[in-house]
Amino acid sequence: MAAQVSQSLRVDAQDNRDRILEVARRLFAARGLEVTMREIARRAEVGVATLYRRFPTRDSLVAAAFAEQMTLCAAVVDEALADPDPWHGFSSVVERVCAMQAVDRGFTAAFVSAFPQAVDVAERRAVALRNFGEIIRRAKASGDLRADFTLDDLVLVLMANGGIRADSPAETVAATRRFTALLLQSLRAHPADPPAALPPAPPIGLHLLNQAP
Amino acid sequence: MAAQVSQSLRVDAQDNRDRILEVARRLFAARGLEVTMREIARRAEVGVATLYRRFPTRDSLVAAAFAEQMTLCAAVVDEALADPDPWHGFSSVVERVCAMQAVDRGFTAAFVSAFPQAVDVAERRAVALRNFGEIIRRAKASGDLRADFTLDDLVLVLMANGGIRADSPAETVAATRRFTALLLQSLRAHPADPPAALPPAPPIGLHLLNQAP
Repeated sequence: MAAQVSQSLRVDAQDNRDRILEVARRLFAARGLEVTMREIARRAEVGVATLYRRFPTRDSLVAAAFAEQMTLCAAVVDEALADPDPWHGFSSVVERVCAMQAVDRGFTAAFVSAFPQAVDVAERRAVALRNFGEIIRRAKASGDLRADFTLDDLVLVLMANGGIRADSPAETVAATRRFTALLLQSLRAHPADPPAALPPAPPIGLHLLNQAP
Repeated sequence: MAAQVSQSLRVDAQDNRDRILEVARRLFAARGLEVTMREIARRAEVGVATLYRRFPTRDSLVAAAFAEQMTLCAAVVDEALADPDPWHGFSSVVERVCAMQAVDRGFTAAFVSAFPQAVDVAERRAVALRNFGEIIRRAKASGDLRADFTLDDLVLVLMANGGIRADSPAETVAATRRFTALLLQSLRAHPADPPAALPPAPPIGLHLLNQAP
């Protein structure tokens, strides 16, 4: 009985932690890091004391909130850097990061600039960006990627991808897949003629145009 | 003196009307047509009585709010339909509609489905969509537009374009211009090799990734 209670307390604690992190990610993503700890506690339906017991400083909350995305993103970039085919490496980053963003709207939050408090996040981001810069350089050097592509264009692609939504997560992923396939064709220095067929898109109703992202 | 007062009243009335329409467009675009007349009055800082004096029915408010965008959009489609060059006609619609959306976030609101109350808007939209369908058909028949492009893809492009933002309206327009130029290259059935140069993009900071549209 005592063991059951103890286990149930641990489950509750884990639930609390997950909920805090989810709420924090969502609020940071929507409004930046200025959101107060008090509001995060309120939205996560935990006491302020509980929040501070789990995350003694704001830095620790920010780092934990974005740790998973950062790790995923860094892994995608590292794999691409090790890819012997520069174009395949480049396009896999675009495809995979867009797919991750499609299922997790807070995904790119880890890459927002101005995280002065979160030194660890900033450092890991700088490494990922430097590595992606190298992936761009290699894909241009091999003659695959158009010469006028810049790192800013990656932000443009991610902003655009962030505007895409469908009626379910699976359909949003499918729409994103068609969109990135289309974009990648125009990023080639020497596009195929005729162009490769696109992955099918889910039905996309006009009603989606004005839903909040 | 009386003339001045009368003129100033007319200016106030016009200001009220413009503000009501602007608020209505914004709220309809963000939350659909369910927004109450009371809330529109409150946000526009006019009395409910004033609102109903100017727009006796919700239908009349909806129609007025979207009339300008509908007229602009219909004109763009009509011009493209009259264009002797099918690809030029098609690409001009994509470019111009995206540019209008970049400066007016409520622009695509006129195309949201389910406007049962606004019969006039629905009819004009149906005509514009039918005409754009014809523009697509012609651009495919001439061998310019890739065969797998669908009307759903136009929605995809507009959703993606709606995700793009920069630090000022002028920079947002420039970013949109680069984005649409890129996309149009991959919509060609026979892409140019090497591809045409892209219009320059404004500097796009990472911080833009997570701002609300």
